[in-house]
Amino acid sequence: MRSVIVVDVVTLKYIGSKPKLKNPILIEGLPGIGNVGKLAVEHLIEMINATKFAELYSKDFPPQVFINTDGTIKLVNNEFYYWKAKKKNQQDIILLTGDYQGLSSQGQYELVNIILNVAEEFGVKEMYTLGGYGLGHDIDNPKVLFAATSTNLVKSIKKLGAIFKQDEPGGGIIGASGLLLGLGKLRGLDGVCFMGETPGYLVDPKSAKAVLKILIKITHIDVDLSRLEDKAKEIELIAQQLREMESSTKEKSDDLKYIG
Amino acid sequence: MRSVIVVDVVTLKYIGSKPKLKNPILIEGLPGIGNVGKLAVEHLIEMINATKFAELYSKDFPPQVFINTDGTIKLVNNEFYYWKAKKKNQQDIILLTGDYQGLSSQGQYELVNIILNVAEEFGVKEMYTLGGYGLGHDIDNPKVLFAATSTNLVKSIKKLGAIFKQDEPGGGIIGASGLLLGLGKLRGLDGVCFMGETPGYLVDPKSAKAVLKILIKITHIDVDLSRLEDKAKEIELIAQQLREMESSTKEKSDDLKYIG
Amino acid sequence: MRSVIVVDVVTLKYIGSKPKLKNPILIEGLPGIGNVGKLAVEHLIEMINATKFAELYSKDFPPQVFINTDGTIKLVNNEFYYWKAKKKNQQDIILLTGDYQGLSSQGQYELVNIILNVAEEFGVKEMYTLGGYGLGHDIDNPKVLFAATSTNLVKSIKKLGAIFKQDEPGGGIIGASGLLLGLGKLRGLDGVCFMGETPGYLVDPKSAKAVLKILIKITHIDVDLSRLEDKAKEIELIAQQLREMESSTKEKSDDLKYIG
Amino acid sequence: MRSVIVVDVVTLKYIGSKPKLKNPILIEGLPGIGNVGKLAVEHLIEMINATKFAELYSKDFPPQVFINTDGTIKLVNNEFYYWKAKKKNQQDIILLTGDYQGLSSQGQYELVNIILNVAEEFGVKEMYTLGGYGLGHDIDNPKVLFAATSTNLVKSIKKLGAIFKQDEPGGGIIGASGLLLGLGKLRGLDGVCFMGETPGYLVDPKSAKAVLKILIKITHIDVDLSRLEDKAKEIELIAQQLREMESSTKEKSDDLKYIG
Repeated sequence: MRSVIVVDVVTLKYIGSKPKLKNPILIEGLPGIGNVGKLAVEHLIEMINATKFAELYSKDFPPQVFINTDGTIKLVNNEFYYWKAKKKNQQDIILLTGDYQGLSSQGQYELVNIILNVAEEFGVKEMYTLGGYGLGHDIDNPKVLFAATSTNLVKSIKKLGAIFKQDEPGGGIIGASGLLLGLGKLRGLDGVCFMGETPGYLVDPKSAKAVLKILIKITHIDVDLSRLEDKAKEIELIAQQLREMESSTKEKSDDLKYIG
Repeated sequence: MRSVIVVDVVTLKYIGSKPKLKNPILIEGLPGIGNVGKLAVEHLIEMINATKFAELYSKDFPPQVFINTDGTIKLVNNEFYYWKAKKKNQQDIILLTGDYQGLSSQGQYELVNIILNVAEEFGVKEMYTLGGYGLGHDIDNPKVLFAATSTNLVKSIKKLGAIFKQDEPGGGIIGASGLLLGLGKLRGLDGVCFMGETPGYLVDPKSAKAVLKILIKITHIDVDLSRLEDKAKEIELIAQQLREMESSTKEKSDDLKYIG
Repeated sequence: MRSVIVVDVVTLKYIGSKPKLKNPILIEGLPGIGNVGKLAVEHLIEMINATKFAELYSKDFPPQVFINTDGTIKLVNNEFYYWKAKKKNQQDIILLTGDYQGLSSQGQYELVNIILNVAEEFGVKEMYTLGGYGLGHDIDNPKVLFAATSTNLVKSIKKLGAIFKQDEPGGGIIGASGLLLGLGKLRGLDGVCFMGETPGYLVDPKSAKAVLKILIKITHIDVDLSRLEDKAKEIELIAQQLREMESSTKEKSDDLKYIG
Repeated sequence: MRSVIVVDVVTLKYIGSKPKLKNPILIEGLPGIGNVGKLAVEHLIEMINATKFAELYSKDFPPQVFINTDGTIKLVNNEFYYWKAKKKNQQDIILLTGDYQGLSSQGQYELVNIILNVAEEFGVKEMYTLGGYGLGHDIDNPKVLFAATSTNLVKSIKKLGAIFKQDEPGGGIIGASGLLLGLGKLRGLDGVCFMGETPGYLVDPKSAKAVLKILIKITHIDVDLSRLEDKAKEIELIAQQLREMESSTKEKSDDLKYIG
């Protein structure tokens, strides 16, 4: 008989050699309400042509592979990208996005600790985490709420147009965007969480755009947001169709009532 | 490829240098039914001006940060406070309160073991754990039930006005207040759990006051309970409004029945 | 900052010095359907006046203390007893009973492994695990089903009046009674699981008695079963009252139907 | 007092001495939708008379023993078999089947890692994982979908008659069949997952046969599939009886409607 002890269930796989980064900031956008954070970071990665340098696999993600369009499989993961500053007023950036957040509460803590390990290894001192703030109703001009690790940060971020409303969100911030700040603060890292207002029913590129507008002021990167606007229009169309289907169903059932 | 093994998911963070305490007692009040224990310990901390000396963070709490009124974030935790005896008949005190108990059964055991580690490090030999005893109906003068780690303690506590009813609570004590006594007894620690009777619908400062009245006799601390009385009146007002709303709703629906 | 790593969440506490036992057999009866196994082992412990020698505490039990009749608390646990052979045809016995089985599947595996560690330390080679086999209907003369770790054991047990019905229980044996045999077999231990037929609605001393009758033939211990018979009569009375309440409720509602 | 730390809850038990295999391929078929994979691998094991060489026991399976027809118990497990190549165009094979997949997401990751450890120890470089693709409706000629770890494999498998439909399955592959490929790819292993179309209501030998037909082309083994055809006919009969019972029940209730 032979006993096997399991260890290798969280894996950080570097793609090529580790990048050399100078005081990078970390920008996180994982799946969540309206997928605001994920949409924002994926758009950013595409627009600035950031380079993937590491993949994070964990037993706290679902036991699932996706099938790519060419028939190959992809184990669900989180991915790290980097981008090197081009101008003097810019900073190197590490970007984090992925397929899932940890499934369990404990998994979330463990994964955020690993993300912070990676961030600290590359010298990150400042983090920007992106998410949505679910309103449960439609909104024309989503505002961006925020919270931060220090009162100094709160002051400087307020000037950029992000909003701090007392007691909102009432339940605080749940998930990776909050934990990165909470566990990061314990390690002495600074951080800001931006939450774009969103109905929360569908993926919300409009809210993602609002969040990126603020982030651009911090990072001094020139990012074209027009494609997010296009996506927002598509989603708006879908939302309208859904509303029409709903009201026509309602009308029909109203008709029936009067006939019956 | 590189494997990452997670260890740092329970963290005890000391604020400043460790206090020097002489035979301190531990008083615990974490969230629970009617929030009786938490209310009582928080009131005590405020009234005796106890000093926070450690914060406990754990993967067994929800992955959540709260947002302070100044826009900064606070990772959910448990907190240790201390107070040094002023008179000869008093003892040094460690107080424990917090945002949550452990989410899972296993998490509760693990957290209580850590709390006991801290308690023993500071020389704690005696613990008082505070909680509520849910009645499911209103009560004018909540009594305080108790259970203890030894028959000697049972005898001495009975004299202070706390009540021991056989077979109450029928299901024993669930959560930190019970586990601290149960696991503490295994380590040779003494302890008493006080349970204030409470309807259990709302936070219950009246029950917290009843519990503190007993605790004052043990600790010989002079604590002003008037603010708890004020809070109790506020809650009583809210409860009355809820009852009125309910009965008016009921009347209306009764009206409708007779009309229809 | 200081990190705390938790280890001490499964504890085996010996009461006094370890007993010296010669080739003891293990008899297990933990809570389960009809509480058949627990009733049987508790009765056995009382009748043969077995001595408690160890308590097992685990994070896989609920975070709960019971309150004894004298006001002291008792952390939920499993308990080991021993009894030394009086006659030549008897063997030393270790008995295991307790408040709970492990809450989770994983917890069950872990606890059974610990129980097997203890058993092997004292030289156990043979185990008898006791449980109920839920029928979902009343039964006058509960039979005792069984399964064993080897075909030799199956043959010898058949002769004692225990029954082996092919495909019963269909789902196999779930919980400690099955796992002790399954994991024990991997360690080279022999074992038999006895399952007393039971309606499964209430605790079932009649089924426990049937199981003990077989066990007495194996252990050559003289055990008075009259108290179990008394308990069985009490339970039968309660069951009858419940049936009467049910049928009277039914009659009333039938009445109403005819009136209405 | 004595503390016990649990380690031995995953056990790999070799039956006899380890087989010596040359570049074996791994074929996996564990329980899943329509039990397609398990049926296929069990049929293969029986037809080629493969030899069991290892059993895998884990706390991530249910705490359950099955009862064999001779009254002995069997702890639920996964089992490894091997078969040595007879002809020049064949390869040695390791086959994996079992009673359960891991109960939890984390358990699935841990078990698949152990299976990969075993596979790598014997020099496996290529894996074929078998499962079902649930359609939710009947199908006469189930097709076999697939996904693979590399575009080269996708190309070569397409030629064998397996089908790759873009965006099917939409949710990717969940469970051991997907994870073996996903985690295996991280270790540099190649692999293909074959998914037989199946209604998914009952065990589906017809779908298992379709999957095996493809696998035979890869392994160059001569396997008699007639018994699977017999089983498929039996299942078809059961399905028909179920449909008749359903429609007769429906007719009766339709009758009642017209009468009433």
